[in-house]
Amino acid sequence: MTSEVRVTRALARFVVQHRWTDLPESIRHEGKRSLLNGLAAGLGACDRPEMVQGLAALEAGGVHGDARVIGRVERLDMLGAAFMNGVAINALDFDDTHMPTVIHPTAPVAPAFLALAERHAVTGAEALHAFVLGVEIACRLGNALHPEHYAHGFHITATCGVIGAAVCAGRLLRLDEPQMAHAIGLAATQAGGLVESLPTMAKSANVGGAARNGLFAAHLAAVGWDAPERAIEGRFGFARVLGVECAPAVILGGLGERWEILANEYKPYPSGVVLHPVIDAVLDLRAGGLRPEAVEAVTVEGSRLLGERADRGVVSTGHLAKLSIHHAVAIAFLRSQVGVAEFTDAAATDPQVQALATRTRFVEVPSMGPGSVRVKAVTRDGNLHEALIPHARGSAARPLTDEEIERKLALLTAEKAPWCDVGCVARTVWAIDTLDAASRVMTLLVPR
Amino acid sequence: MTSEVRVTRALARFVVQHRWTDLPESIRHEGKRSLLNGLAAGLGACDRPEMVQGLAALEAGGVHGDARVIGRVERLDMLGAAFMNGVAINALDFDDTHMPTVIHPTAPVAPAFLALAERHAVTGAEALHAFVLGVEIACRLGNALHPEHYAHGFHITATCGVIGAAVCAGRLLRLDEPQMAHAIGLAATQAGGLVESLPTMAKSANVGGAARNGLFAAHLAAVGWDAPERAIEGRFGFARVLGVECAPAVILGGLGERWEILANEYKPYPSGVVLHPVIDAVLDLRAGGLRPEAVEAVTVEGSRLLGERADRGVVSTGHLAKLSIHHAVAIAFLRSQVGVAEFTDAAATDPQVQALATRTRFVEVPSMGPGSVRVKAVTRDGNLHEALIPHARGSAARPLTDEEIERKLALLTAEKAPWCDVGCVARTVWAIDTLDAASRVMTLLVPR
Repeated sequence: MTSEVRVTRALARFVVQHRWTDLPESIRHEGKRSLLNGLAAGLGACDRPEMVQGLAALEAGGVHGDARVIGRVERLDMLGAAFMNGVAINALDFDDTHMPTVIHPTAPVAPAFLALAERHAVTGAEALHAFVLGVEIACRLGNALHPEHYAHGFHITATCGVIGAAVCAGRLLRLDEPQMAHAIGLAATQAGGLVESLPTMAKSANVGGAARNGLFAAHLAAVGWDAPERAIEGRFGFARVLGVECAPAVILGGLGERWEILANEYKPYPSGVVLHPVIDAVLDLRAGGLRPEAVEAVTVEGSRLLGERADRGVVSTGHLAKLSIHHAVAIAFLRSQVGVAEFTDAAATDPQVQALATRTRFVEVPSMGPGSVRVKAVTRDGNLHEALIPHARGSAARPLTDEEIERKLALLTAEKAPWCDVGCVARTVWAIDTLDAASRVMTLLVPR
Repeated sequence: MTSEVRVTRALARFVVQHRWTDLPESIRHEGKRSLLNGLAAGLGACDRPEMVQGLAALEAGGVHGDARVIGRVERLDMLGAAFMNGVAINALDFDDTHMPTVIHPTAPVAPAFLALAERHAVTGAEALHAFVLGVEIACRLGNALHPEHYAHGFHITATCGVIGAAVCAGRLLRLDEPQMAHAIGLAATQAGGLVESLPTMAKSANVGGAARNGLFAAHLAAVGWDAPERAIEGRFGFARVLGVECAPAVILGGLGERWEILANEYKPYPSGVVLHPVIDAVLDLRAGGLRPEAVEAVTVEGSRLLGERADRGVVSTGHLAKLSIHHAVAIAFLRSQVGVAEFTDAAATDPQVQALATRTRFVEVPSMGPGSVRVKAVTRDGNLHEALIPHARGSAARPLTDEEIERKLALLTAEKAPWCDVGCVARTVWAIDTLDAASRVMTLLVPR
């Protein structure tokens, strides 16, 4: 039952030996896109209760230091900062998604280098490289565990993310191969996170904890803590205890040739991904001149998956709104834009929104793929308006452009972080691999 | 698959409503015994690599503050101190064992109140009460998960301990019932720990992490973080994701009437429990005047369990020595005492020890129970000496007396913490429920 292949060691070796010059330009660029998207999501979350109260809890625990927190004036030690930055990036559910596993890799991994770069001499290229390597390992482990792992109840972003964070931090701490194997093992033994938590703030404890624990694992390995040689593949190791089997070929196949970050997608709207084509369709109809007051009834035709996940009628909370076809249709018609403000409790309980949501229905069309949707709106004067979306914005077929990610940053910061020089943030991230000090990024993310 | 019984809420209610005056004297006293035994184990571990390097890793992460660490001059924030104190108490494998589950409950739970009492006004009675309640909940959850949970690969001391720590801290933070339910959920979602880690220092990351994460969970709940209503019993909650089923009757039956801490045992020797009757037998022979240089060969007769766990011949490391019949026989004969120094790498590789270990063999006797052992020593002059141990010292049939726990404290501190006033520590713990400030305990555990 123990894998014969030394998976833990092979991963450590790859991470320690991989050279920046062997990282293709396309992968570097996708790393920057993931990062910019994640920082945008983090800035947009800076006044969330998770952030305000999380900082209060750390303060009550006596945590303080010099490390910065995205969008905040408070300073923490590196472990506390990694926790809060992981929380920030993921809190709005607006961060990246590694589609094969539904891991959100930037939230657990990026905080490791953001914190380390504030205390150690780390160039921008080193930071970007370590970040991409961390994402790579987290997602490869996820590939091996998916789908049983999440279906069983483990929050995969946290359980695999903690190892990605350890890899990222371990690379920047210049661990040697045995130390890196220990860092991976020390992270693996801290892996946890329940799916039951997802509708609550406890979700953020999973993600923030993954960032902090991975960073700590690397620090422990750096000073001499050891961990099991077969932390991933052993009989009582990560892959078998939290999954079904180890699948070395899935984890190790094509390492350094295929890059998982290319399967990362970025959301144009802060809702469940299944609703994105619905929103696209309504915004298309709206852009075509159809006004909400003219709409009598709306029918959404889509896949079984869409119905299973989001055919939930009128809802009463922002959280549930993120997975309601009815809310999505109504809010997109009424507001012509779909950002964070469109998924608050206030938006969900807006009488106009609820009225239009009530006049919306879902029809399953088995022949339609999970990413496609047709929206039919009948107006009060009896006309039918139709929009077909074969692929949503942000999907692999229609990825967000760099400019769209920049616009997302601008929109998210406009309300929550107006002090932020978004042009400078974008320029700095696009050029992170030319920075002498990666710490430059973090200095742009906090108010003066 | 979701339990109908509101387990999470029932646990929270019990913990919040239970009154000190309803805690029987016998339970209070067992709490003090667990605590004194744990502090002894922690003091004896104060110069271990886990401690020295763990503190270095936290320092590198910028962690600092006012909270004390057992046996050390360093000061940390409360979260860091809880981590290191959990590591300390468990590092030597000399702490308590809740026999029905093999949870070592004091290591994850006690650090929560030790850290909190340094910053908040907490009386000794409040601290002891919270500690007993934390142990109670951790062990009851363990009862529900055992034995599948550990057999599957989860380190039960960590996974259940984190919830015990949250309960202990939450009680002292005076959480109300909904907050306490959130604290339990926030702890449950952080639960992790791989059995694969046990032979390495990564074990300490499990235990220290449980102490820290439970303390943090209570702080998060205190400031407003929420968690799933059915964190324990939900479809994707703690009991089902980390175990098989929820078993509400096991978790909740007789709450406040039966107390799990009464099933706690304390080790007279820092080895695997299965070796304790072996050591008892050899020390009995030794006390009867049999000298090691007279011994030609030794036969140990015992249960199948003993053979499975510890029939491993001559070993080369202190860690393996803790589970070697051969080493245990040799070292007990040669040194007439069996403490921490008898399970070091140096002790394992001592040529005299290895020579006598080589002349030792194990014979399985199916009729013998797992706690009983017969040791037969044949001397060079052909005489046979025999000792039968039906129950080992420290077992339920022969629990360590209060004086023996005090002696354990004295022995463990003599070498590693000679500055420690062990008489004062013992008197303070026995009278902890009369202290105005529970912080008094911690001040006695560090060098001036």
